Amino acid sequence: MNLPVSIDALRRLCAELPEGSATAAQSAAQRQAMLTKPRGSLGRLEELAIFLARWQRGMKPSLDHVDVLIFAGSHGIAARGVSAYPTEVTAQMVANFANGGAAINQLAAIAGANLSVTPLEIDKPTADFTVAPAMNEAEFLAAVTAGMRAVVPGVDLITVGEMGIGNTTVASATAAALFGGSGSSWVGRGSGVDDEGLTRKATAVDTALTFHGNALQDPLEALRLVGGRELAAIFGAVLAARLQGVPVVLDGFVATAAAAPLTRLHPNGLAHALAGHVSAEAQHPRLLKLLNLDPILDLGMRLGEGSGACLAVNILRSAIACHNGMASFAEAGVSEN
Amino acid sequence: MNLPVSIDALRRLCAELPEGSATAAQSAAQRQAMLTKPRGSLGRLEELAIFLARWQRGMKPSLDHVDVLIFAGSHGIAARGVSAYPTEVTAQMVANFANGGAAINQLAAIAGANLSVTPLEIDKPTADFTVAPAMNEAEFLAAVTAGMRAVVPGVDLITVGEMGIGNTTVASATAAALFGGSGSSWVGRGSGVDDEGLTRKATAVDTALTFHGNALQDPLEALRLVGGRELAAIFGAVLAARLQGVPVVLDGFVATAAAAPLTRLHPNGLAHALAGHVSAEAQHPRLLKLLNLDPILDLGMRLGEGSGACLAVNILRSAIACHNGMASFAEAGVSEN
Repeated sequence: MNLPVSIDALRRLCAELPEGSATAAQSAAQRQAMLTKPRGSLGRLEELAIFLARWQRGMKPSLDHVDVLIFAGSHGIAARGVSAYPTEVTAQMVANFANGGAAINQLAAIAGANLSVTPLEIDKPTADFTVAPAMNEAEFLAAVTAGMRAVVPGVDLITVGEMGIGNTTVASATAAALFGGSGSSWVGRGSGVDDEGLTRKATAVDTALTFHGNALQDPLEALRLVGGRELAAIFGAVLAARLQGVPVVLDGFVATAAAAPLTRLHPNGLAHALAGHVSAEAQHPRLLKLLNLDPILDLGMRLGEGSGACLAVNILRSAIACHNGMASFAEAGVSEN
Repeated sequence: MNLPVSIDALRRLCAELPEGSATAAQSAAQRQAMLTKPRGSLGRLEELAIFLARWQRGMKPSLDHVDVLIFAGSHGIAARGVSAYPTEVTAQMVANFANGGAAINQLAAIAGANLSVTPLEIDKPTADFTVAPAMNEAEFLAAVTAGMRAVVPGVDLITVGEMGIGNTTVASATAAALFGGSGSSWVGRGSGVDDEGLTRKATAVDTALTFHGNALQDPLEALRLVGGRELAAIFGAVLAARLQGVPVVLDGFVATAAAAPLTRLHPNGLAHALAGHVSAEAQHPRLLKLLNLDPILDLGMRLGEGSGACLAVNILRSAIACHNGMASFAEAGVSEN
């Protein structure tokens, strides 16, 4: 995989995405119809098995190597009181990931997945996007390519998530830039801000929308101007996965907003991605709807860290275990209807 | 655990159910508040960990020994054309379970659970409940106690499911007897009947309601008169679990209807039970609502075999992995808000 050396090169890469295998998907669907169960009775599990067959380009998908990718970043906008937590928590949580004490450590273990945490210059926050571009072009490209490099050859599936105090405001700004709407229509309580915090978040987004103006019409520029390093890295990872034929599970509001520019750069840019869950963050349901993503889980989670995406991995494992392991009507001597 | 020797003894057992431990639940909730995440941000996972602590009577729940219990039965009502499949499929699927070829075999393996299949005189269908009691008292008690015996000492959690051609009609009749309403308001397409089949199902239920009349007012009699052996066994397993302090995950429409009489015999008779999923069978959402059960998963499944309940086990594993394994703010040196 060639890494893009400029934003134009990145844009060209996004415009020419490979498709999944319709043949593999069709073979998988035919297999599903032969298995010892009423047709369609495994519901979403059947669709997920066929989805994985399509994107892994084989009738029998595998999940032997699953990587849970977490990207961490720091945000200038955090200085405007948009989070319930102090900014040092980002680095503290990266240490917690390394020590195995966070939720995602436990969830990755249950999912049989490898946890990979990539801190992105967390001692160097992005600029406050209400008064400047969050990142210059070099910083943006560095973050995108860090995300791309995190998708290693031979991986069967990645999940993408993040850590970054202040980043739900960043995600709201990105969503507003991509899909329109005011700050107040895109913000939520994140890690738990009060009403005043919520107002500060909406004001920050509105100020950024006015400050950057028409430059936000371009989806990559939107991600650079009002995004953040971990969002850019998630974008890069989702792109690299597509280029390498690796299906993706998105986490919550921030990860979904980070991946969203790909749908503006290619008509089915997120066709290889699943929404692991719908989070309790207020505008995640709306964002998923805009992206035609139907979440696998709905458990009122709003932690980030890739937690909801990781939790969905065992649903995928169950889907392919049935798909690959069940007997057919003929094999089992079971009468059909 | 003493097995009831009469329906009256069974009724007395149901009236005096032990409660969970409020102390353990409170300790678990206090622990959740100390872990390195915004309070409440793991959503349902936090509630599930506290639920398991309450019913396992300890602050740190475990799922080392999980039994997936499947009960199979045959139904006289099947002769009235209420299923898309021939009746021999029940025995064929029991053989498929034994040979490892069914969906539940694959799902139990992914859930790290033991699969236990109990066929209940599947060569001897219950009577056609439109013209006779489905079971006499001895048959009913035998099925209930078979279910009770399936809950072995030391198990941490059970899931309950079933196999039995014709048993969605049986479940609809049971639900109508317990909660009122006509046949057409309780039937669904089961394994996939057409419109004529759906009408035959509704007619069968209505005929049974008229034939048995006021005798159906009694919840245990309802289960005996219009139920089936696998439903009675599920009822027994859910009861035995409560008596032994074992939490339960219910599967879909049939398993939920089978457990439902317990709520009519005790004010919080199903407090130790979770709904693993909401199935695509038409009246399962309504039945769950009547029982105040909030399903963990919603994946459009309608297979039975305990498949949805088993799929929820890894959500529970994830919940307690976070609960038991995460670091506290103090342990990890993470700043609180």
